[in-house]
Amino acid sequence: MSSSWVDIDPASDFSLANIPFGIISTAEDQTPRVAVAIGSHVLDLKALAANANLAALFPGIDGLTPALSSPSLNAFAQLGRPVHRQVRAALQDLLATNTQHSALLRDNAALRQRALLPQTAVQMHLPMEIGDYTDFYAGYHHAVAVGRMFRGADNALQPNYLHLPVGYHGRASSIVVSGTPVRRPVGQILLADPKMPAPMPEVAPSRKLDMELELGCFISRPNAMGEAIAVGEADEGHVFGYVLLNDWSARDVQMWEYVPLGPFNGKNFASTISPWVVLADALEPFRAGGVENRTVLHEYLREGREDGVFDITLEVDLTTAEGDTTTIGRTSSKHLLWSFPQMIAHHTLGGCPMRTGDLLGSGTISGPGGQGESGSLLEMTENGRKEVLLRGTDARTFLRDGDSITLRGFCGAENGRVGFGECRGKIAGAAQTRR
Amino acid sequence: MSSSWVDIDPASDFSLANIPFGIISTAEDQTPRVAVAIGSHVLDLKALAANANLAALFPGIDGLTPALSSPSLNAFAQLGRPVHRQVRAALQDLLATNTQHSALLRDNAALRQRALLPQTAVQMHLPMEIGDYTDFYAGYHHAVAVGRMFRGADNALQPNYLHLPVGYHGRASSIVVSGTPVRRPVGQILLADPKMPAPMPEVAPSRKLDMELELGCFISRPNAMGEAIAVGEADEGHVFGYVLLNDWSARDVQMWEYVPLGPFNGKNFASTISPWVVLADALEPFRAGGVENRTVLHEYLREGREDGVFDITLEVDLTTAEGDTTTIGRTSSKHLLWSFPQMIAHHTLGGCPMRTGDLLGSGTISGPGGQGESGSLLEMTENGRKEVLLRGTDARTFLRDGDSITLRGFCGAENGRVGFGECRGKIAGAAQTRR
Ligand SMILES: [Ca+2]
Ligand SMILES: [Ca+2]
Ligand SMILES: [Mg+2]
Ligand SMILES: [Mg+2]
Ligand code: NI
Repeated sequence: MSSSWVDIDPASDFSLANIPFGIISTAEDQTPRVAVAIGSHVLDLKALAANANLAALFPGIDGLTPALSSPSLNAFAQLGRPVHRQVRAALQDLLATNTQHSALLRDNAALRQRALLPQTAVQMHLPMEIGDYTDFYAGYHHAVAVGRMFRGADNALQPNYLHLPVGYHGRASSIVVSGTPVRRPVGQILLADPKMPAPMPEVAPSRKLDMELELGCFISRPNAMGEAIAVGEADEGHVFGYVLLNDWSARDVQMWEYVPLGPFNGKNFASTISPWVVLADALEPFRAGGVENRTVLHEYLREGREDGVFDITLEVDLTTAEGDTTTIGRTSSKHLLWSFPQMIAHHTLGGCPMRTGDLLGSGTISGPGGQGESGSLLEMTENGRKEVLLRGTDARTFLRDGDSITLRGFCGAENGRVGFGECRGKIAGAAQTRR
Repeated sequence: MSSSWVDIDPASDFSLANIPFGIISTAEDQTPRVAVAIGSHVLDLKALAANANLAALFPGIDGLTPALSSPSLNAFAQLGRPVHRQVRAALQDLLATNTQHSALLRDNAALRQRALLPQTAVQMHLPMEIGDYTDFYAGYHHAVAVGRMFRGADNALQPNYLHLPVGYHGRASSIVVSGTPVRRPVGQILLADPKMPAPMPEVAPSRKLDMELELGCFISRPNAMGEAIAVGEADEGHVFGYVLLNDWSARDVQMWEYVPLGPFNGKNFASTISPWVVLADALEPFRAGGVENRTVLHEYLREGREDGVFDITLEVDLTTAEGDTTTIGRTSSKHLLWSFPQMIAHHTLGGCPMRTGDLLGSGTISGPGGQGESGSLLEMTENGRKEVLLRGTDARTFLRDGDSITLRGFCGAENGRVGFGECRGKIAGAAQTRR
């Protein structure tokens, strides 16, 4: 990768090899609009479009200028992968030291001033208008660890687990962008065994507030209702890009409510995503093999490639109210049993329509190595039976008010990193509620 | 209720006592816009607003004219219940024989020509832009019947069932308006017992395609994330109105996929709603007691009234490809264990944000009387073990290609009926898929 005329820290997630898209606003212009991240700056594409001849930079793309002024990335995503590819390549050229369009921005101080803004000066918004959110359960080691905890090693995986990407419909309205405070949910919680006669749940703030380390995938183009998406066409035809996703979970609420229809209030109070959408093409160099599945798969799930997932280094930091940070988990997104194209093929098998901006979660990602590679406190603490030690003398089973969780994810070497920045949320105390 | 100058069939669902809202388009003006139904006609409110002095009819309502020209009812719903009440009352006056505004429409032939259209001349659209769709399981006799079928009479209800309104997040993108064809879904189906070693599912069109008779409830005004809606404020503050809902279900797909995270492809291929939203106020005269729940409820679920649900007569017709119609189910929406205000209070207990246009389904509604009062073929046929007899010599266990299901719902006596019209869908053959 060539270097950039923008000063970029070698360790930055936002190297010239990345060019992730997001939605920004500024104090001067509070209208949300499209930008890309480059090093510690963002390039405001609305400002660029208003002040430069975009036809020279992006020839022949219909609808690009209105898409770049939109308050979400949906219009841009809808343009499809070939356009994303062309725009990203043109922006890489524009920002490269040896750009072919030096007069347009590199040597145009007035436009640089207006369009190239420090990240500290912009507010990030939800990047997409999310129609539907689906959360899968494709993190193999997570599913094994959780299944073993509740059903024993012999029945850890449900019979369907190796045959199809298990998932559930989540709550789109509860998805928030990194930095949004997360209030501890109140819920019905059963302290006794539910099989006891006359169980009596209490209504209380969750005592088992947890995080879930996931990769999120945004849909670019829709399919028609009733028409399945073929696994081989899912990536190029329907994947826009990726974010980090923290699917906050109240384990005690979930435990009492989830039979037989799945997670509900235990999951729908908040899910946090990172603000920058890393385009699918930016992750292409980091493909890897996922978890091997020896099950004979049906044709519609056979991807015809061994490297359907990505090897993204993932980290979880817990920061206490006092400000002490401990990295409590470190793993990779390669520990998935199913790729996103497989999830999309399965999701649409019966004809379910995907729309631009729909979000798919991978499910919690954990490595095979136990506590330090886990993507949830449920696993790290064996459902609260042992503590995770933090810096100093502190420790946790589940999250306390004032704790912050920060997810990070990146691949590639210095000066060419492709990363997500931060996905962060801080726990606020529960609301007062009539119980 | 006074009579109308519009000629209304005494048996019409759309009496002057109703005034339901919907979204129409016409051959002359294909822009979707707001209308109300009256007898066999619709009143085009965009045409009314363009041609009449609305300030005289609806004094003091900000934002009404743009709301009535919107392509969905969201903007109108967002105005809140007092506005819906005022607008419905004004329209009832406008359409009444002894209207105080006779010159505005009754005696204005030119405007009547433009704004009062036969229902046969308009196309109906989805009434709301649906952000999230949640389906509950509040039909008590349905839950008992299905639970008994799969777990025996002693364990028919799960331990949580009487303590909280069980529900799951559905798929908003798959909701279609009455009349939209429903393609039989292809899915993974396990013919053997899943507990057998090495289960091998097949991929095939569903053999157990079913319907579910439900009442749907649309949300008017949002709550802030993290702030629960009190049960006593849910109706006036957050309920817009009601529709009929057919939650089509592929029982064989659902059976194999649903443990542990709930229904997914078995439900997300289509759900059909009736096009006219019956405003909450129009159902007020038809309140009734729901199914008695002897469980001691937590404060947040105590509604403080005995008549939290509605006694709406509900009917299910099956029409074969040959055109023979049999009413296979007849029940009432009073057979709910939980009211919509209770569902809303529970849904938001942990802070989940509701948005304008969100849809809540009641869950399948069945009466206590068995087959003829059932809201699903699963119950009527005991999961395919016995047949439902149709007119002539035909019979069904589950739905065949070419079958149509029509839901109807109404309350009140002739000349004052408040009904929903039809919620109809016809089954189209499955897509060809690489298995
Ligand atoms: Ca999750
Ligand atoms: Ca249902
Ligand atoms: Mg969540
Ligand atoms: Mg459905
Ligand atoms: Ni009257």
